[in-house]
Amino acid sequence: MTIPINLEEKLAAFSDLWSPKIVGAFNGHDLMVVKVKGEFNWHSHADTDDFFLVLKGRLTIDLRDGPVTLGPGEFYVVPRGVEHRPVAEEETHILLIEPAGTPNTGDAATAAVKQAI
Amino acid sequence: MTIPINLEEKLAAFSDLWSPKIVGAFNGHDLMVVKVKGEFNWHSHADTDDFFLVLKGRLTIDLRDGPVTLGPGEFYVVPRGVEHRPVAEEETHILLIEPAGTPNTGDAATAAVKQAI
Repeated sequence: MTIPINLEEKLAAFSDLWSPKIVGAFNGHDLMVVKVKGEFNWHSHADTDDFFLVLKGRLTIDLRDGPVTLGPGEFYVVPRGVEHRPVAEEETHILLIEPAGTPNTGDAATAAVKQAI
Repeated sequence: MTIPINLEEKLAAFSDLWSPKIVGAFNGHDLMVVKVKGEFNWHSHADTDDFFLVLKGRLTIDLRDGPVTLGPGEFYVVPRGVEHRPVAEEETHILLIEPAGTPNTGDAATAAVKQAI
């Protein structure tokens, strides 16, 4: 039997923050869920747009010209090359899409290892 | 001020079925919302995987080796080249991601025109 991917079930399977988990693949991209709380670093991705869909909580994406704030059911795409810093006051759950192998910090040296779950 | 895309607001802005509306762009792909009810045609996409995330309702994707059924917060990726037929008994709302210009029926001659909203 073919079964779909349930995002809530996948999110219940881990608790570490800022560590994207791969839950699917699409056209050479990883579909990932991540739990975040606090401030991430300022970074950019030279070669890819960055898609954020909030599933639970509240995410602010600081941009150099001001913040964008997302609640559940809201998404934002940071264009490639644009510096941004994700910030969440409460624990926030996000669906991410990035080309397979994209470092989450914008730099392979400091990036989290993305595991499939 | 930069504002995110609210999927529910976008879905409230139209009522026609099986007519994907473009709500964003990501790495050469259209991010789209669509309302469906009833049976679509069997089709496949030779050049792209097909991503379905159910936001509301219930979607069955018939595959030649059996169906996969998705509720809210569940996604499924139909691999490129795989025949499938979306079916929904009740009105169902979906987030789709496809390369810009992909015909929703798999055939440009019968495809819906995708409008941005």
